Amino acid sequence: MPALIQPFPEIEHSATRFPEGLMLDCGTHLAPLNVAWRSYGTLNAERSNAVLICHALTGDQYVAETQPLTGKGGWWANIVGPGLPIDTDRFFVICANVLGGCMGTTGPRELREDGSPWGTDFPIITIRDMVRAQKMLVEHLGISRLLAVIGGSMGGMQALEWATTYPESVFAVAPIATATHHSAQNIAFNEVGRAAVRSDPDYRGGRYWADGRIPAQGLSVARMVAHITYLSEEALTRKFGRRLRGANAVTFLEDVFEVESYLRHQGSSFVRRFDANSYLTITRAMDYFDLAAEHGGDLHKAFRREGPRFFVCSFTSDWLFPTAESRRMVQAMNAAAARVSFVEITSDKGHDAFLLDEPDFHRALGGFLAGAARDSGV
Amino acid sequence: MPALIQPFPEIEHSATRFPEGLMLDCGTHLAPLNVAWRSYGTLNAERSNAVLICHALTGDQYVAETQPLTGKGGWWANIVGPGLPIDTDRFFVICANVLGGCMGTTGPRELREDGSPWGTDFPIITIRDMVRAQKMLVEHLGISRLLAVIGGSMGGMQALEWATTYPESVFAVAPIATATHHSAQNIAFNEVGRAAVRSDPDYRGGRYWADGRIPAQGLSVARMVAHITYLSEEALTRKFGRRLRGANAVTFLEDVFEVESYLRHQGSSFVRRFDANSYLTITRAMDYFDLAAEHGGDLHKAFRREGPRFFVCSFTSDWLFPTAESRRMVQAMNAAAARVSFVEITSDKGHDAFLLDEPDFHRALGGFLAGAARDSGV
Repeated sequence: MPALIQPFPEIEHSATRFPEGLMLDCGTHLAPLNVAWRSYGTLNAERSNAVLICHALTGDQYVAETQPLTGKGGWWANIVGPGLPIDTDRFFVICANVLGGCMGTTGPRELREDGSPWGTDFPIITIRDMVRAQKMLVEHLGISRLLAVIGGSMGGMQALEWATTYPESVFAVAPIATATHHSAQNIAFNEVGRAAVRSDPDYRGGRYWADGRIPAQGLSVARMVAHITYLSEEALTRKFGRRLRGANAVTFLEDVFEVESYLRHQGSSFVRRFDANSYLTITRAMDYFDLAAEHGGDLHKAFRREGPRFFVCSFTSDWLFPTAESRRMVQAMNAAAARVSFVEITSDKGHDAFLLDEPDFHRALGGFLAGAARDSGV
Repeated sequence: MPALIQPFPEIEHSATRFPEGLMLDCGTHLAPLNVAWRSYGTLNAERSNAVLICHALTGDQYVAETQPLTGKGGWWANIVGPGLPIDTDRFFVICANVLGGCMGTTGPRELREDGSPWGTDFPIITIRDMVRAQKMLVEHLGISRLLAVIGGSMGGMQALEWATTYPESVFAVAPIATATHHSAQNIAFNEVGRAAVRSDPDYRGGRYWADGRIPAQGLSVARMVAHITYLSEEALTRKFGRRLRGANAVTFLEDVFEVESYLRHQGSSFVRRFDANSYLTITRAMDYFDLAAEHGGDLHKAFRREGPRFFVCSFTSDWLFPTAESRRMVQAMNAAAARVSFVEITSDKGHDAFLLDEPDFHRALGGFLAGAARDSGV
């Protein structure tokens, strides 16, 4: 494993090295390629019970176990595990850190072959590039067809890309709380976050590794604005309302509302586990994502009758990826005669609902996966 | 006029000086007080045709004439003027720069009596303090009762505060695209903006006047995030969609979507006309605003049967101050037996709709004002 850019703590992630590398959409040949990944459960003899989980923007491969940097539990430990909707007693569950990430897969934070850091020299990547890297890992594991690819938010974009790029290599696909493209508003929020990072003088044009300083302030602001978009107005109000921290805490220019101190905490804890250049690289990939554009502007051409079956799921209070986006997606799948189930879950938790305890969602996802296992003969 | 903090261009604003100053909600006595203001039309002999317009967060007193810093037209020139809904052939229209602002009214950007800049020593202000300063100006002009107070967004908060604090001094009140309190989400977005300003090293704890540098990057990011909340998803999509700037402009870390370059322009032009400490001071005042809390938690106690008549107006695609907030306000007004008309305008332009060409809105507002003039005998 190459050394990492400091002052991010160096952790030994379990990874697979692909010396041949990967041809990217931008035309750059990225080699070698490391893919860091984790698995849960056991691959059966037929290699037919593999489920790939794709993580979101700031997620990682530690789906169902302690995250080594934060010491917190896995981000989907409420869904992935023995007897849970994604049942590790039945399925072999794989999750890889995305291309461009900062948890062991090749990305801006790692060193090149010549020992110099990638940083801002890291090439432009797309969601499809991320999926290509995952496909290499899956083939390396000897799996010719995945039982399912499942992901929420940016993970859902990857799931959709799997269905489009490798339709023969996956039986069932579950894009959750996602869309077939990033909207102008989504792009705008991402751009504010990137502007905050770039305007931090510690960012120094992305070459912030020289003396161990990182653009913590800018990245923190980026995380704060993103975090607002992950929550619904209802969830924010329920959590904080207009409560002041301490009855007489009205002081000039200091945080006085609980929601402020919460957001600041979100921002400051984020910078201890995420790389700024990775954030810029991955948010760009999300902004570029446009499944229809990859198919001449016709979204339904992205899907096919003989392709995988779909489980599309949205949440009523998600305003980052609203239900209307899922409906458009389902319409195109139907137009292509693909098999698709669509569930809209009533929740007031916003975009974050896909990560939280939503029994209806868990039941529906578990049922879809069990049905896919039955129909594919697992 | 005291000198202004550089490098903001020094402009001679027409202002009235109140040596006795103002007792603020925070307990500080702010003296002297300057109120910069503009007027249009002629005050009649009975002094009964005065209409006070309250501006929004980043607005100013130049409602219907060229803004001296930007050289652009007045921010409500489409509504205020001869023969327009707020008809300056009939009404004497007044607009004052808010307390804490940076266009001539006393605020963080000005110098104290001892010649030192206010900066972050400027006291905490509230929406009610802003209204108190306006009341002093109105009395100074010999007007005992305004025909109307009209404002959108933060201007609507001031209009509501007028109805509550000085119910005998105004005949009709029009709160537009506003709410009786700032929601947790609104506070959160404001806090992101403030965090961006504070984290700019050129902010230097608010004492950025020493060598002529201003926290332009941070203030620009604050403006960008705020600007997204002013537009609807539909408006952003219509304006920009996912259009790239130049077909082959896909470059790493540079702006490539039109929406990004638009937002950056919004940010960079804003810092040439607005003071960072003013931005922090005024957004705080918005966050503190809670009309119900000023009346023991009972919103309907903020209004009274004998008080002014109301014209409440919201816009369907405004997600910053959604129609639900206006409905709550109207319900409380009705509970207090106040006279109230409520109009929800169908528009896909978002919060900004109140500034734009919305014929239905203009007709409704003009009709309300004409009716008020008729009924009050103007």
